[in-house]
Amino acid sequence: MCFMHALLRECRKGTLPREIEPIARNEGMDSNHLASALIRGVVSLPLNPRHSCRPCAIGERCRVKVNVNIGTSAPRCDHQLELEKANAAIVNGADTLMDLSTAGDIPALRKRILSLGVPVGTVPLYEAVRRAGSAIDVDPDLLFRVIREHCQDGVDFLTLHCGVNQAAFDALKVDPRLMGVVSRGGAFHLARMAQTGEENPLFKEFSYLLEILEEYEVVISLGDGMRPGSIHDAGRLAKTTEYLTIGRLSKVCHEKGIQRLIEGPGHIPLSQIGYNVRMIKELTDHAPLYLLGPVVTDISPGYDHVVAAIGSTIACMYGADFLCMVSPSEHLALPLVEDIVEGTRVTKIAAHIGDTVRKGHVWQEARELPVVLARKDLDWEGQFANALFGDHARKIHERDGITDTCSMCGDLCALKLVKEIFEKKEEKQ
Amino acid sequence: MCFMHALLRECRKGTLPREIEPIARNEGMDSNHLASALIRGVVSLPLNPRHSCRPCAIGERCRVKVNVNIGTSAPRCDHQLELEKANAAIVNGADTLMDLSTAGDIPALRKRILSLGVPVGTVPLYEAVRRAGSAIDVDPDLLFRVIREHCQDGVDFLTLHCGVNQAAFDALKVDPRLMGVVSRGGAFHLARMAQTGEENPLFKEFSYLLEILEEYEVVISLGDGMRPGSIHDAGRLAKTTEYLTIGRLSKVCHEKGIQRLIEGPGHIPLSQIGYNVRMIKELTDHAPLYLLGPVVTDISPGYDHVVAAIGSTIACMYGADFLCMVSPSEHLALPLVEDIVEGTRVTKIAAHIGDTVRKGHVWQEARELPVVLARKDLDWEGQFANALFGDHARKIHERDGITDTCSMCGDLCALKLVKEIFEKKEEKQ
Repeated sequence: MCFMHALLRECRKGTLPREIEPIARNEGMDSNHLASALIRGVVSLPLNPRHSCRPCAIGERCRVKVNVNIGTSAPRCDHQLELEKANAAIVNGADTLMDLSTAGDIPALRKRILSLGVPVGTVPLYEAVRRAGSAIDVDPDLLFRVIREHCQDGVDFLTLHCGVNQAAFDALKVDPRLMGVVSRGGAFHLARMAQTGEENPLFKEFSYLLEILEEYEVVISLGDGMRPGSIHDAGRLAKTTEYLTIGRLSKVCHEKGIQRLIEGPGHIPLSQIGYNVRMIKELTDHAPLYLLGPVVTDISPGYDHVVAAIGSTIACMYGADFLCMVSPSEHLALPLVEDIVEGTRVTKIAAHIGDTVRKGHVWQEARELPVVLARKDLDWEGQFANALFGDHARKIHERDGITDTCSMCGDLCALKLVKEIFEKKEEKQ
Repeated sequence: MCFMHALLRECRKGTLPREIEPIARNEGMDSNHLASALIRGVVSLPLNPRHSCRPCAIGERCRVKVNVNIGTSAPRCDHQLELEKANAAIVNGADTLMDLSTAGDIPALRKRILSLGVPVGTVPLYEAVRRAGSAIDVDPDLLFRVIREHCQDGVDFLTLHCGVNQAAFDALKVDPRLMGVVSRGGAFHLARMAQTGEENPLFKEFSYLLEILEEYEVVISLGDGMRPGSIHDAGRLAKTTEYLTIGRLSKVCHEKGIQRLIEGPGHIPLSQIGYNVRMIKELTDHAPLYLLGPVVTDISPGYDHVVAAIGSTIACMYGADFLCMVSPSEHLALPLVEDIVEGTRVTKIAAHIGDTVRKGHVWQEARELPVVLARKDLDWEGQFANALFGDHARKIHERDGITDTCSMCGDLCALKLVKEIFEKKEEKQ
């Protein structure tokens, strides 16, 4: 019995599954509201019953969540490094991990990532391509077999590029893009479609796909295989054609009780973020939206973590629910541990700033005030204890010695001066 | 004869000063438009005739400019370090520098900063406080003398906290803020006002102040001494009271032909940036707006450069013209060279993203396309040559060896795969 089915059944009886309460509390949300949001499909909860991990609610009125991608590639295939990266991500606030390995013993690494206690996502097509030897040799049987294996292993959500169909391919031909296709999943499907003339099996046999996901209670993440690869390409047809397909598939998922996430673009100019996010939300009946970026300029490789944080904060203002970390090595190299640390922190900051808008005033005060009160009193320990990355802040502060003020102002500290003014006034009165 | 007066006189004769043309060209702007914008006061050009430097137009339809603050403090007073920081700022794209020194031989360092070839700003009050020994001992004569000295030395723009008057002080008492006053200039004025009961001389003798600025053709930067010091404080009265005063003073400046910049807050929640920027623009007749931040969360010390980049990018969407760098050591310590490098780069990225909105589609394409075209062709050298910080990007890319693809995807490069699909199709046809 799938989680959503069980939930629906229990709710119709007027009871709430007991698992709901702590998850709702963690979001500062009423249990009934969370149950209702799950039933309406505006919140999803990736939680494979075969996987033991902390639950993570994603969607409307939940805190914005952060996913971090790790995984091997042929040029750099080191399981130990990937596990270090995964742990660094969790320590710095990752809510979920995706294992995007494309080299080495992929199932073995996946099992170790699944042991880390957070929801895990994968892209089964990557493993299928590695096993077949090339993208054009991935027959549908192999692909569905790999999907089933990932479900059996306990993966909580699967990115499946079901929207990369002939309609999207046609759109790409009619209205070409400089960067073509930059999604690996998208490119793999297209390569086989171009070679064989066949439709993408994930689109053609979508009902069969949903049967597998229902059997294992796994969340589908509808991948954005046609996401623009440069801000120049953002206004081309392929992206919007895929939105429409994903919107239709999102409805089918919801009707069948399959939880879904929607993946969004990509490279988008600042001025186009708002309407893109709103359009996707509308087309998918406000399903939880999972964004990579958006990257809002293409001229800052090496700083794409900051570029994506700027784009994603704005996307959160319009309804993005789930942010995929972008690391400083994006577009340049497979990330190292320090890239994951920096990327995760910066993405976490974007998510938090998004929350200051979406979670409302009371929530914002609760999270922000402890740091402000400590800063007001020049209580450095209090600041570090309540800051997002207090140990990092401490290192910067203490490099010029441990003092009550900071080395920026020293004896000319404005806070101290003004405090004295008001204290003197009070004494006089 | 002040620059603005000369400009007005020449324009009335129907001629354009010859200095205008290269500046306009550099902004992708018509000379007549720039002259008109300067006359209307929506663009300012800090350019002290006693100072030799590259001109920097700030305001409507100009590229968003970046200022970097450097300067000594009592806990860390090292002229050589400050000069290294100044040079690092210029190398990484600073358009102007401000010397905020509060310790050591302040005039000597200022002269060296002025030799670096970019417009320079200062806060004369800091030096006056150091010379008097304390803020309450700065008498008006000393303050005006120091202002005159800075003008004589060739400083191009002066931050003067003329809006910190009794009305602002009253607003602070009526509607207190947790963080009180975090602007050093603001705090210094308030300390003396509280001690002596006198009005801020920069407000009281504003006409005299403008006479000095007119004599030396120096731009006034109307400082935001009442800027909120935490997002919790953003909605309090003192800030808006100061906006109103600054708005009135801005009109006086413009009537007298004194170019001005307007400084804006501070710590502001994401949801409040838009109306604050618009309100300041309206009240000041759309004078060029110079922002520090806004910092949109208080819980990320150590990452306030990113927090400010997020806030300032959004502020640019609403009309901010000039961004002050925030470094990773903000709120923690005086920045080191590496903080200036990181802070300047991230602020420069925010300014560029702001430009993608304000400078329009054609400008955006011109700046972005070279990188996109190089990336499409896996032409790494072309990417690095056209990127904002190409050397930094190169280091990340080359750490896994020099190859045509990157170590993220290796043999599974989506770009390569899709290129092959379309090339095969073309061969068939």
